[in-house]
Amino acid sequence: MKIFKKAILPRGFKASGVYCGIKKSGLPDLALFYSELPAQAACSFTTNKIQAAPIRVNYNYLENNRGFSAIITNSGNANALTGEEGLKDAYEITEYAAAALGVKNEAVLAASTGIIGRRLPVNKIKQAMPGLVQKLSDKGIEKANKAIMTTDKFAKQITVKFNIGRKTVTICGIAKGAGMVAPELKSAKSGHATMLVFIFTDADITQKGLTRALDLSIDDSFNCITVDGCMSTNDSVMLMANKAAANVPIDLNKNFDLFLTALKTVCLELAKMIVSDGEGATKFIRISVSGSQSRKAAKKIALSIANSNLFKTAMYASSSNVLGRIAASAGAAGVPVKEKDLKIKYSPLNKKNVNIDVSVGAGRSGAVIYTSDLTHEYIKINAEYN
Amino acid sequence: MKIFKKAILPRGFKASGVYCGIKKSGLPDLALFYSELPAQAACSFTTNKIQAAPIRVNYNYLENNRGFSAIITNSGNANALTGEEGLKDAYEITEYAAAALGVKNEAVLAASTGIIGRRLPVNKIKQAMPGLVQKLSDKGIEKANKAIMTTDKFAKQITVKFNIGRKTVTICGIAKGAGMVAPELKSAKSGHATMLVFIFTDADITQKGLTRALDLSIDDSFNCITVDGCMSTNDSVMLMANKAAANVPIDLNKNFDLFLTALKTVCLELAKMIVSDGEGATKFIRISVSGSQSRKAAKKIALSIANSNLFKTAMYASSSNVLGRIAASAGAAGVPVKEKDLKIKYSPLNKKNVNIDVSVGAGRSGAVIYTSDLTHEYIKINAEYN
Repeated sequence: MKIFKKAILPRGFKASGVYCGIKKSGLPDLALFYSELPAQAACSFTTNKIQAAPIRVNYNYLENNRGFSAIITNSGNANALTGEEGLKDAYEITEYAAAALGVKNEAVLAASTGIIGRRLPVNKIKQAMPGLVQKLSDKGIEKANKAIMTTDKFAKQITVKFNIGRKTVTICGIAKGAGMVAPELKSAKSGHATMLVFIFTDADITQKGLTRALDLSIDDSFNCITVDGCMSTNDSVMLMANKAAANVPIDLNKNFDLFLTALKTVCLELAKMIVSDGEGATKFIRISVSGSQSRKAAKKIALSIANSNLFKTAMYASSSNVLGRIAASAGAAGVPVKEKDLKIKYSPLNKKNVNIDVSVGAGRSGAVIYTSDLTHEYIKINAEYN
Repeated sequence: MKIFKKAILPRGFKASGVYCGIKKSGLPDLALFYSELPAQAACSFTTNKIQAAPIRVNYNYLENNRGFSAIITNSGNANALTGEEGLKDAYEITEYAAAALGVKNEAVLAASTGIIGRRLPVNKIKQAMPGLVQKLSDKGIEKANKAIMTTDKFAKQITVKFNIGRKTVTICGIAKGAGMVAPELKSAKSGHATMLVFIFTDADITQKGLTRALDLSIDDSFNCITVDGCMSTNDSVMLMANKAAANVPIDLNKNFDLFLTALKTVCLELAKMIVSDGEGATKFIRISVSGSQSRKAAKKIALSIANSNLFKTAMYASSSNVLGRIAASAGAAGVPVKEKDLKIKYSPLNKKNVNIDVSVGAGRSGAVIYTSDLTHEYIKINAEYN
């Protein structure tokens, strides 16, 4: 398995990004991802009960599951809390993209990120569509990646290549997300944080294998990060597989682990990049809870620590107060924790990367959560965001 | 019922406060509350699984329930996460106070607040004890109130007087708490936030009545506030009743509502003062959720909003982004919420007091939560706290 810290689109995929007029900043805000061959898709969306309009459109199209050709996505506006009108807007956008690409409406998935509660300027998107399609290329992924950013400071991208026999399979993933990050995704049924993740692979893999691999990969990556504990209405992880690698088909019992390992790498690295780029973050913190009776309990404890503002501000200050705040947060997690069993260790606090190990007993289960600190810059970004 | 915005100790109670050497600042850090007559007590402590040593001592003494004469309390050190040695320290402190007062050890309850994970300087407390007892007076409550403060900016105190026949009953409450505030208290069985509340009454009331009245009062007050969503290891609400008013005894079916109304007033006003003094707070925010299927669900939604950092920073900025962030938080509460049923209204955001009304449907239940905004000052206070 080879890992590249850049986006290299697999065979048969193209992308483009343009400015269509949504963002005040004039930065790119509309992106298109296109597969020449009809692709399979596995998706995972926010578990927030208030789901953005594009997610509702995706659920509809994914139910039919007739093969997918593209994903149309914008930043600057989440198209969330926009009611039935917003839903109509989201459908229209997929229809414009489908028309411009010459594919069926339900072959185009959608995602949005940005301000909640405002209508999207659908006409601007419509007008930009021909140019967006015209610019599609295998190099267009960089521009597309810029077009999905909101408060992100750097592009999050990774590519993994591995062989099945003589065939090389590529998995390429890009992501946006810096705040409103505390995903809790569920396989095309739910998830959270404004985090958008797009993953493209030329692997030939069964639908069952694709869905299962994504579920397993998300569980240890995107569902294990939190920046601010705030679950978004728009979180989406979308994976397209177009079979262009012409490998011996992967299934649950055939080369599955090869694919899974590669996909897990893509998801975990992107998840870590999102935390590194956490709004205002000065630290990247890995919290490992061990000795628990169950993974679920361990994760609750780790998340309780990771989402504690007192923990996060102590981390910002590299203050030894963090010890007591870790203990108090662990005790507040709502699962059994005994003071006498609690062992807390941490690496030097004044570094950018800090590891925190919390042992809670003699159990065999554990969980790892990645998070960032809470800083003045976070307050500034989110007080001034518009 | 008459309400006084100051602490007027009921008959038979005395208090004192001194500096014994715990706080670096040299400000008062040790307080004693004393009832000349043996009093009944009803207490409610944090539900945090890591409970501070004094709370464990109290549970022991409350189980015996032989009548209570005093509460000894310190600030500057929480005596939490201090293991069996810390527990021994807490017992010793109650013993020093008992000896100085000439009462039994188990007649002295205890509370601490401050840094977690450090041993208390028990000798300094021992040395200060004679002076502390000597200074006991009915006016000593002001000094005692100063001695329980940590990051508090103002003293939280209230007195309510009401009549039963010709007898006047007094309930006086004082509180500390500004950060690590998100209580979840349970009647002498659990609760959360470093919030300490001491309430004294001269009412003659049965133990059942006293316990029930405290439970009901806490449910609508201290358990409905959150500053930072962080549950403390030390939260304590302690109520002493010494019968000095010589009223016709109150019981569940006799003058109970009179007493309950007065106690609820004391608890709610103190709870609101804690939120007003929330670390770094520039706003006092009342979140009312209505139309819910159950009070529990309504409270979950209100707390999810109140504890959202994105909501709190938008409030700090008086930003209209708050609308989307309220909706996203409501949807992330883990209870059913439908976008089409969601109605959000708020009073002008640029005021100190802001009311937020969220209707989630046609249900008949609701809940009210009080909270503050998240500001640069909160970060500063908690990064620099030591």
